[in-house]
Amino acid sequence: MKAGMVGLGKMGFNMAEHLLECGHDLVVYDLMEERVADLAAKGAVAAASLQELAGMLDAPRLIWLMVPAGDPVDRTIEQLLPLLERGDSVVDGGNSHYKDSERRASRLGQDGVNFLDAGTSGGLEGARHGACIMVGGEKAAYDALEPLLKALCVENGYGYMGRSGSGHFAKMVHNGIEYGMMQAMGEGFNLLDASRYDFDLEEVSRVWAHGSVIRGWLMELMVQALQKDPNLAYLKGSIADSGEGRWTVEAALEHEVSIPVIAASLFSRYRSRSDENLSDRAVAALRHEFGGHAFIIKP
Amino acid sequence: MKAGMVGLGKMGFNMAEHLLECGHDLVVYDLMEERVADLAAKGAVAAASLQELAGMLDAPRLIWLMVPAGDPVDRTIEQLLPLLERGDSVVDGGNSHYKDSERRASRLGQDGVNFLDAGTSGGLEGARHGACIMVGGEKAAYDALEPLLKALCVENGYGYMGRSGSGHFAKMVHNGIEYGMMQAMGEGFNLLDASRYDFDLEEVSRVWAHGSVIRGWLMELMVQALQKDPNLAYLKGSIADSGEGRWTVEAALEHEVSIPVIAASLFSRYRSRSDENLSDRAVAALRHEFGGHAFIIKP
Amino acid sequence: MKAGMVGLGKMGFNMAEHLLECGHDLVVYDLMEERVADLAAKGAVAAASLQELAGMLDAPRLIWLMVPAGDPVDRTIEQLLPLLERGDSVVDGGNSHYKDSERRASRLGQDGVNFLDAGTSGGLEGARHGACIMVGGEKAAYDALEPLLKALCVENGYGYMGRSGSGHFAKMVHNGIEYGMMQAMGEGFNLLDASRYDFDLEEVSRVWAHGSVIRGWLMELMVQALQKDPNLAYLKGSIADSGEGRWTVEAALEHEVSIPVIAASLFSRYRSRSDENLSDRAVAALRHEFGGHAFIIKP
Amino acid sequence: MKAGMVGLGKMGFNMAEHLLECGHDLVVYDLMEERVADLAAKGAVAAASLQELAGMLDAPRLIWLMVPAGDPVDRTIEQLLPLLERGDSVVDGGNSHYKDSERRASRLGQDGVNFLDAGTSGGLEGARHGACIMVGGEKAAYDALEPLLKALCVENGYGYMGRSGSGHFAKMVHNGIEYGMMQAMGEGFNLLDASRYDFDLEEVSRVWAHGSVIRGWLMELMVQALQKDPNLAYLKGSIADSGEGRWTVEAALEHEVSIPVIAASLFSRYRSRSDENLSDRAVAALRHEFGGHAFIIKP
Repeated sequence: MKAGMVGLGKMGFNMAEHLLECGHDLVVYDLMEERVADLAAKGAVAAASLQELAGMLDAPRLIWLMVPAGDPVDRTIEQLLPLLERGDSVVDGGNSHYKDSERRASRLGQDGVNFLDAGTSGGLEGARHGACIMVGGEKAAYDALEPLLKALCVENGYGYMGRSGSGHFAKMVHNGIEYGMMQAMGEGFNLLDASRYDFDLEEVSRVWAHGSVIRGWLMELMVQALQKDPNLAYLKGSIADSGEGRWTVEAALEHEVSIPVIAASLFSRYRSRSDENLSDRAVAALRHEFGGHAFIIKP
Repeated sequence: MKAGMVGLGKMGFNMAEHLLECGHDLVVYDLMEERVADLAAKGAVAAASLQELAGMLDAPRLIWLMVPAGDPVDRTIEQLLPLLERGDSVVDGGNSHYKDSERRASRLGQDGVNFLDAGTSGGLEGARHGACIMVGGEKAAYDALEPLLKALCVENGYGYMGRSGSGHFAKMVHNGIEYGMMQAMGEGFNLLDASRYDFDLEEVSRVWAHGSVIRGWLMELMVQALQKDPNLAYLKGSIADSGEGRWTVEAALEHEVSIPVIAASLFSRYRSRSDENLSDRAVAALRHEFGGHAFIIKP
Repeated sequence: MKAGMVGLGKMGFNMAEHLLECGHDLVVYDLMEERVADLAAKGAVAAASLQELAGMLDAPRLIWLMVPAGDPVDRTIEQLLPLLERGDSVVDGGNSHYKDSERRASRLGQDGVNFLDAGTSGGLEGARHGACIMVGGEKAAYDALEPLLKALCVENGYGYMGRSGSGHFAKMVHNGIEYGMMQAMGEGFNLLDASRYDFDLEEVSRVWAHGSVIRGWLMELMVQALQKDPNLAYLKGSIADSGEGRWTVEAALEHEVSIPVIAASLFSRYRSRSDENLSDRAVAALRHEFGGHAFIIKP
Repeated sequence: MKAGMVGLGKMGFNMAEHLLECGHDLVVYDLMEERVADLAAKGAVAAASLQELAGMLDAPRLIWLMVPAGDPVDRTIEQLLPLLERGDSVVDGGNSHYKDSERRASRLGQDGVNFLDAGTSGGLEGARHGACIMVGGEKAAYDALEPLLKALCVENGYGYMGRSGSGHFAKMVHNGIEYGMMQAMGEGFNLLDASRYDFDLEEVSRVWAHGSVIRGWLMELMVQALQKDPNLAYLKGSIADSGEGRWTVEAALEHEVSIPVIAASLFSRYRSRSDENLSDRAVAALRHEFGGHAFIIKP
């Protein structure tokens, strides 16, 4: 199958390499020329521009976007749209907001161009060796995309989620669950660490990764992380977040759904990034005011 | 009314002073002689030992303990018990665990001595000028204590909670609620502080302390704290806890009652005391493992 | 002082009555004629339309809106704007979103009309006998409004919060704190109820309302509620929410501020409205799948 | 290897059957004779009493207990102890509290009998086809047990955790993490269900179980559960808990470790079992008191 791939960052590059390996023909484009050249060396056809990329593909075209969520997706689509024909398909494989995907599908649909929102999971390793992809959009367009999905994903690792937006909504919720799972694991290992026993955390994670109820890829990654340093002392406990967690909480607010654990996981990340905050100072100050409790003077 | 007061720390001293002011006769004892002398100067009768204190009181004796929760209460009771007679009453006005109070009531009851568990709220100011006291134990012993409670508390600020243990159980739950209220206030002021407006937090607290739905003593204390420094920068946001919060969570576990907010408030305190913890490091490490996300290298 | 009052619902009516009592002159309007007539009987000047209301006020006019948040505010402003002159002031005393208030202030400012966002707290009783009001907008317009605020509020119960939007932002955060406080109280009383003691909850609330650290208006309201029925059995534990709680969480997401307790309070409300939900069923089902644990068959 | 197995409930029976299949010799005992007979039919040697079981094993004996946590373990040990000799080993493979295991190890150690606490994970399927076991106790006794562990567990699925108690402590924390993971999954599927899309939840779970970041055994079990009914409508969302979750929270309180997500997961279970509770009624009642907000009258 022949397809275009736009955006050759960490994820996009790995996915393109994987598709090439599976025998698909790819025309690739990225703003960074060396990324394009690297992929060309692996068998892809290099495009110097979106125009060139569109020109090298036969209608109905299939173009997979792997560009950062937000404005870059809109800008890419604005530039692509005049180059496309009725019946072409654009797939957004990034972590876009599902409402943006609904809007984009509607916009492209006006010109007869299909838009598929494809939530991609599995990390860098999955992108390279077999991912998990949830797709929303027109079912016929999904069916046409399926050979590519089959190549990109592990067996059983892709599926049709429903109308436009549902692919990215499912990915967003997936990440919300991921936040909760990771936080639960963090809390548990922290409690092991604080206990009066002398656990070898790497050993515990290894055992839990094999045969336990909580085994899974995240536990295997915990083994990897702890192998580097059993105390994880090589990094600071400051946890970034890339948006899907807060979108999940926003969606829960909109739908009036109770998600205490996912929200608490997100707030733990915010808290991890604000060692000094007025919230804690206010509580400490109140204790002092009513009970004369000592407080720690700021150094 | 004549009574003995054992334990003249911050709370006990203030309460004793308040009782003297109300015209009650007090025999007082503390391990620290200067505290005893200070109160004698204000009209109390000084006792040099528990024996002397017991000897200076007529049966049926009324002895109020204001010693630190835990072993000190048990030790004081062990020493007092041989000096007491059937019909005497011992009141524990400290923050004892309700199960200890049940046990002590049962022990003293074997010798015909009443034991009342009196949870005291209102902080140092309340101890000095009018507190709030919840009492558990025999109703007849409570009735005999009432003149003292009337003097110690603001109007309507005391009551009979039920059988032994209920006074300290009520006080424990009171503190659990207090944890939740303080945390909610801390979070709210933090959000004001982080907003794009330029709030004068002292001004906000002053307004909220007058006429709002969330007015109350804690809000008045927030005004006091913010008056010292509108950013509370004189202290570190490291929040101690003195036990009742965790007892409340333990009691909720025992009774299978859902108290997410009180528990989250307690855990926020623990978190405030552990800037570096394996929990946050583990989550940051997992993010790196699956997504290649950057992490902050420990300095 | 002479002012217009638009919107005579529960809150607006009480506030108008209070202002009349304080000797202010009011021109009042509401879509429901009987509300207008009722206030006219108490000394207000009745207006049959916004046009009439604007005509009866001298420039610079002062018009206080007490209409439901959302579209009604926009519609009222659209109708009022052509009737107003440069220098007039419109106050929105409802629970509007702070971003709407910023937008409205900007729109009215184009025509030289002042817009003040006034967050009003204190409930129905406060509206009638003395409220708490936080105001955002131009300082000069706030100063002109002050006589009315002084009449409406308890002493010290109003203040200038800053530029447009800050009044409603402060009110929103106030409600977030209120959610947390109420939830903490609910959890505490629930634990008392579940304990092995036989608490008289009304008695406990009465004691806590007098002299305790957690005393305040909410505790006084708890006394009132429990006086009606010590088990609150007259209502179902289904807790509505009117928007400010979720706005607070949204604002925290936007500002990346950790508010675990306020969010947990909101989610407890959502949960209270969904006795049957897939979340609980999913966890129960998972337990059965791995451990063969029994589950309760749906009736 | 020859060993005794006491307790042939769901887990114990499966484990015994698995050991027999692996070629180990088992003497088995249970209070329920038919369970013993069933295993005898599969090749085990039936014992009619603990005495008989002990008599059929050569010193140093190895006896694996798979009886319910709590008193049954103590009673079994009390009966076994007089039948054992110095150098024998008793393994507790159930979900005992780690402090009980410490106590038991100390008690048996006085008589020279080894006690190993073995936390067993993997559910019924793991018990039958390959489990995950975390063991605490004397290292030499662990080494002697290893052939049995190797047979019972999947590859890499067992390990030595440290001194007595550490095996059950690790299992307890494992279950705490499990609570958090399951709750995060429940919340996520609930949000999918409440969304405006029309998700086929079974399809989503299938995709997520293959190649995603959150893949793992729990997600595979979710597929199984949803295959029975995509809405899980065959069960009521009332979630039981068997103790390890609350022990985890208690341990966190004891060690002052913040575990907001694990605790929130436990409280969600409690909440799921109390549709009508005073907590929600109190909040609904307070809303009515201050704002005149309507409430739902109890039917």
